[in-house]
Amino acid sequence: MKSPVASLLWRSLRVYQVFGANTDVGKTVFTALLARAAKDLPSKEAVSFLKPVSTGPADEADDYHIRRFAAGVAHRTLFQYDIPVSPHAAALASGKETPSDEYLLAKCRDFAVECAARGSGWLFLETAGGVHSPGPSGSTQADMYIPLRIPVVLIGDSRLGGISQTISAFESLHIRGYHVQSVLLFQDSQYENHVFLADYFNKHHGIPVVSIPAPPERAKDADQDAEAMAAYYARRDCQTRATQVLEHLDRRHGEHLASIESMAAEAHKHIWYPFTQQSLLKPGDITTIDSAHGDYFQTWTPPTTKAAQANTPVLKSSFDGSASWWSQGLGHSNPKLTLAAAYAAGRYGHVMFPGYIHRPAMDLASTLLDGMRNPRLNRVFYSDNGSTGTEVAVKMGLRAARLRYGWGTDQKLGVLGLRGGYHGDTIGAMDMAEPCAFNEKIEWYEGKGYWFDYPTVLCKDGRWTVTVNDELSKDIGEDRAYRSLGDIFDIETREQRGEHHRYEEYISKVLVALQQRNLKFGSVIIEPIVLGAGGMELVDPLFQRALVNVVRQSPHLFSSTTHPAPRDARDWSGLPIIFDEVFTGLYRLGRFTPSSFLGVCPDISVHAKLLTGGLLPLCATLASEHIFDVFGSPDKTDALLHGHSYTAHPVGCQVALTSLREMQAMERRGDWQWARAQGWQSSDDASQSSSADNELWSWWPRDFVEMLSRQTERVAGVWSLGSVLAIHLRDDAGAGYSSNAAQGLRDALAREREGAGGPWNVQARVLGNVLYVMASQSTKEESIRQIVELLQEALV
Amino acid sequence: MKSPVASLLWRSLRVYQVFGANTDVGKTVFTALLARAAKDLPSKEAVSFLKPVSTGPADEADDYHIRRFAAGVAHRTLFQYDIPVSPHAAALASGKETPSDEYLLAKCRDFAVECAARGSGWLFLETAGGVHSPGPSGSTQADMYIPLRIPVVLIGDSRLGGISQTISAFESLHIRGYHVQSVLLFQDSQYENHVFLADYFNKHHGIPVVSIPAPPERAKDADQDAEAMAAYYARRDCQTRATQVLEHLDRRHGEHLASIESMAAEAHKHIWYPFTQQSLLKPGDITTIDSAHGDYFQTWTPPTTKAAQANTPVLKSSFDGSASWWSQGLGHSNPKLTLAAAYAAGRYGHVMFPGYIHRPAMDLASTLLDGMRNPRLNRVFYSDNGSTGTEVAVKMGLRAARLRYGWGTDQKLGVLGLRGGYHGDTIGAMDMAEPCAFNEKIEWYEGKGYWFDYPTVLCKDGRWTVTVNDELSKDIGEDRAYRSLGDIFDIETREQRGEHHRYEEYISKVLVALQQRNLKFGSVIIEPIVLGAGGMELVDPLFQRALVNVVRQSPHLFSSTTHPAPRDARDWSGLPIIFDEVFTGLYRLGRFTPSSFLGVCPDISVHAKLLTGGLLPLCATLASEHIFDVFGSPDKTDALLHGHSYTAHPVGCQVALTSLREMQAMERRGDWQWARAQGWQSSDDASQSSSADNELWSWWPRDFVEMLSRQTERVAGVWSLGSVLAIHLRDDAGAGYSSNAAQGLRDALAREREGAGGPWNVQARVLGNVLYVMASQSTKEESIRQIVELLQEALV
Repeated sequence: MKSPVASLLWRSLRVYQVFGANTDVGKTVFTALLARAAKDLPSKEAVSFLKPVSTGPADEADDYHIRRFAAGVAHRTLFQYDIPVSPHAAALASGKETPSDEYLLAKCRDFAVECAARGSGWLFLETAGGVHSPGPSGSTQADMYIPLRIPVVLIGDSRLGGISQTISAFESLHIRGYHVQSVLLFQDSQYENHVFLADYFNKHHGIPVVSIPAPPERAKDADQDAEAMAAYYARRDCQTRATQVLEHLDRRHGEHLASIESMAAEAHKHIWYPFTQQSLLKPGDITTIDSAHGDYFQTWTPPTTKAAQANTPVLKSSFDGSASWWSQGLGHSNPKLTLAAAYAAGRYGHVMFPGYIHRPAMDLASTLLDGMRNPRLNRVFYSDNGSTGTEVAVKMGLRAARLRYGWGTDQKLGVLGLRGGYHGDTIGAMDMAEPCAFNEKIEWYEGKGYWFDYPTVLCKDGRWTVTVNDELSKDIGEDRAYRSLGDIFDIETREQRGEHHRYEEYISKVLVALQQRNLKFGSVIIEPIVLGAGGMELVDPLFQRALVNVVRQSPHLFSSTTHPAPRDARDWSGLPIIFDEVFTGLYRLGRFTPSSFLGVCPDISVHAKLLTGGLLPLCATLASEHIFDVFGSPDKTDALLHGHSYTAHPVGCQVALTSLREMQAMERRGDWQWARAQGWQSSDDASQSSSADNELWSWWPRDFVEMLSRQTERVAGVWSLGSVLAIHLRDDAGAGYSSNAAQGLRDALAREREGAGGPWNVQARVLGNVLYVMASQSTKEESIRQIVELLQEALV
Repeated sequence: MKSPVASLLWRSLRVYQVFGANTDVGKTVFTALLARAAKDLPSKEAVSFLKPVSTGPADEADDYHIRRFAAGVAHRTLFQYDIPVSPHAAALASGKETPSDEYLLAKCRDFAVECAARGSGWLFLETAGGVHSPGPSGSTQADMYIPLRIPVVLIGDSRLGGISQTISAFESLHIRGYHVQSVLLFQDSQYENHVFLADYFNKHHGIPVVSIPAPPERAKDADQDAEAMAAYYARRDCQTRATQVLEHLDRRHGEHLASIESMAAEAHKHIWYPFTQQSLLKPGDITTIDSAHGDYFQTWTPPTTKAAQANTPVLKSSFDGSASWWSQGLGHSNPKLTLAAAYAAGRYGHVMFPGYIHRPAMDLASTLLDGMRNPRLNRVFYSDNGSTGTEVAVKMGLRAARLRYGWGTDQKLGVLGLRGGYHGDTIGAMDMAEPCAFNEKIEWYEGKGYWFDYPTVLCKDGRWTVTVNDELSKDIGEDRAYRSLGDIFDIETREQRGEHHRYEEYISKVLVALQQRNLKFGSVIIEPIVLGAGGMELVDPLFQRALVNVVRQSPHLFSSTTHPAPRDARDWSGLPIIFDEVFTGLYRLGRFTPSSFLGVCPDISVHAKLLTGGLLPLCATLASEHIFDVFGSPDKTDALLHGHSYTAHPVGCQVALTSLREMQAMERRGDWQWARAQGWQSSDDASQSSSADNELWSWWPRDFVEMLSRQTERVAGVWSLGSVLAIHLRDDAGAGYSSNAAQGLRDALAREREGAGGPWNVQARVLGNVLYVMASQSTKEESIRQIVELLQEALV
């Protein structure tokens, strides 16, 4: 089985990738010069040259040039095409099978591993053409080589127009996270690009530019030519410069290693981590991230053996198993999102929002409103994260209820929610949640509301079960098993069977009791389908639907005196219903909105995390026009007085717009067909109607989920939906945030493994007794299979 | 006086900028083709050609080519250099005066204005060389032309390597916010770049690629050459494609106009604005922002005359007079910040933070801790905005006080602050402020604390005055005038004179009274020097210093039973002191930290807004090690349980790091010397010591500030410090957030003016009876002078 390709970083092997600002700028000449100079260093280390893809006749190839002019350098060409055109065209014309990007990178790594095994040395990897010249598969090289994260020597263009070529090539590399360490180019006395570029790169990027005299013009006679080139390479000025460049590269290599190896200790001293008991955190527990790509971090942790071998890879690939705190959708360092962010930064920077409008904010608002397909929602309020967005939502909802029911500003209002519900860490968001481990020690926390107990869904010992705890069972009955998760989500059928009646009766009974205690409520706020921070609980959707229905049908339970009828079908009734979709929305559970599982249209919804595809903070709170209208008055202090400086920052809006459109395109294109086909669409599920809207599926295979659930000695239950897999482990000491039950499993996943692509592991997170693994929306089938294997190893 | 150059956008004149992916790719040929085709359109509109800079012999120049092959096209070359090298080198070699970027852009605009005056038509502006080829001044063209915001036709490179050149050139334009509308290139049957690029640009960017046959090879004989080219231009396929391109460009032009003109109405329907009473907001009140650069937005508001003239510029330059809600530091669409954001996005995307570390977060933490020069601060906690960051700060402070003083979790704790202090809009942040217009209608708001009245600083009728309101005067005495603002900030001298005694006595008296009422406090939180949202009040620094000193000297006033001595000089005493530097920090007032004005080292400080130079949200809360230690225990629920998904997002950290380093470099380089020299360093100020740390200065000239203050009929007082100018207007109806007194002045600034660079205005904000204008840290002297003139016009 293939494993992810780790970055090419060793202590003893200095690997550099030579990119050209254009074709024919002297990449091979400079590489030969560097390789010769490396051979000549007093340390007498091994020097290697790799040309992954070469086009044009083999005897003119760069490999040949190196062999001829840099004796003693180990050299290899991986893919040679005779036709002197761009690799993608050459590969196509060759009639040979085109190597995939993954295969090509794996082959590069194999060669580097061979070099590293020989001990201290240098490896120069020379690309073909310019930075964006397409590789054999058609991916451009700047995109294709990202995962190797090799620092770059950029060969600049000394010809007319070369200043532009060199700067643009640099930018294409830089915005993909490449570290360009040196710019080298030939001197040209007419254009003097080297003079301009030396100043430019020093001033703007702190990168040294080194220039050498141009090589002799190509002679007609091959022997003459060879002689002239040999003389050129032997020039003292060329050699001196090359040696200086090597010294610089060697220094940068050392600095990079030192940076990686010192960071955890620095962080341990100066960083105050969120949600982390730092008295239990040793420097060695801190994972250093050198880069990330797709689903994988490149991580460093202190070597477990006493002293790391010089030829041990420094970095490993770590699967980002919590989707970076549930935010990740389109993969780390996705060039599409980078370009979206950079475009908006370049077009606007940030522009203030009150009374202003810009295209990214407007288009994102429309895309969200359209995507929700909720006729109630008509307004978009932007803020910075889920916590601020739920505070905004509750400010909206409470005001609407207070004014309709005629309560004074001194009236204490609570929210209705679910036990274990969680909406963020600002005080107002905390106050929406019942007292729990997250908030009970917070000085200003004061839970404001009532939180219902509820039945959950788990696959237990192979059976999909609506699970009811003892206390609740007297009201809503015992556990009930279903043939499939789809059957549990087939709300219509269940309602036809009358399963919702006991839920509704129970909810009504509680509301009546609350009214009798004279408590007042101003909104319902729930996380539809899954309570994330509350312990990855999958809630019986029928219960959430029943809660909304009862509230909407019972205005008299919230105000006995006055409860005007809703003005129209889009108006709220009973209480404003707020869906906190921060975690479960925008394809986390496989759909644009999880409210579609419930067949419920909330009056207010909150969206963050996946909203930006996993790049940066942004939140949108959507609301109905009726809620919005409540804040209208001739008095400006009646407005919704909430706002952050960077409200609707264009960078965030453009990234979110790009992310949503991309995820919608993935859905339309059927990119997730492989996942849907993993047993989730079996014909015996009553729920599987022909409409895509009714489909329920997961990135994790159904039989695997059911099989895990049969490991009943350790596993209490499992569920999976969309990209989330949650394994509830048995914990005799009691569940909850303080539980340590899942840590063993987490540690088993985190154990470093040797793969064909280098060392790798899986970094999952635990919530008390629950271990969850969360894929991104762009996770590949291959990665899911690997993790499935690891979990089977660990649990079965 | 020069005025900012507005974007070149007219309804009737379609302006396109032709950029080349490289030199010699056929820019002029394509431009000639497009110009000819435009002449041939049935509409018979005027077609113009502008070559801002041309190098090489005039008779070979592009202008000449257009004249020859596109008869009837108005053409002009602005700067002609005979030497066929890059413009910057040619300009230097010519011995002529090098035109500045501003001058060159103004000239471009002048030509476009002439074209627009002729009515409906087309204007093609052809650049020189590649996208990053330097202009005469040495700025690269991609940077230089940004303010004109002309949509682009990019001429691709059809030669070997041309795929890479074309994509990289596109990216350099795209990340600067250019709209590339078409990619055109020659067909080449060997390389077929047009085939690859058509697919690439369609798939990744939705941009059409159009290719035409290559022109004939250059003939030796000039007449032959001309004949061959004429035949080429006459080819039907070339003409057809050119016409298709024009149709596309015309459509895009129309869409752009429609987008601009429809956005306010769309926003009016669907956007919920922060801090805006929308029932008073008409679509025409919403400003549409098409782009921004430096200190200027390019804005659209509905034309005031009935029907806009077709040749009226669509956009105007609007000075961002609130620094985009106090966030702006390094100018909108600053390429340096764009590249920083894109680099981090490309290197990491977002990576989760708890237990992880990455370079941008680590280096930003070190830079902040070093920059503060406060030996107490040792820890950095990241969050997303000022509001979340102050909540974090107060969570830290309250816990420290509660544990030291042995209070239970049920103990109600308040904060000590200043009246009108404001820390953000989440409920916890609101609770730190006394009841006021911003929060009194918020359902969950509950002010927790005591807020001191305080003396303010204003220049009144030319005299710098510490102003005391009636109520306070009985305790701390009457108004007192000083020779200069510097004298007021010369705290040492004032303390030598004993001016602080009455402050300290007053503060002690209040604290004793609070203790007698049995109120408990857990932190002091103040905005050092200026209370922003509270009405742009400049606080007497001596008072803030006295408050901190009294609190630190009086642990017994906070806990009568037990108050252990501080463990060392870095430990807090009395109460943890929190400085909310979100608004006033990081050079807003001219210094890295405003705490240096007070000579006070807070125990906790909060930083946002300018932190990222004005690009996107990020916040850092800094704390002492003693505060941090309080959260250490074997129990993980004792940790600081706060965190957001995008905590320490690498994009934000990298942008912040780049911003801080840039602002520090500006300070070191003396970039603000012109501002410092505006009367703030006059020799008669006792405060002006030789140390830069003691300097006090403003972007706004001192004599101007003092002169404004003498307009006593309308002006109650003025102050200015750093980039802030605050004009307190008289308002007989009473001051405060609901006041409308300053709106007339705001409207006067917002009135559109015709400048040499097109229409422009100043968009300032008001806070009740205060009008403020806030420059960015990169605002040019020229812009300040223009605004000074406008204010003089309006007020004097």
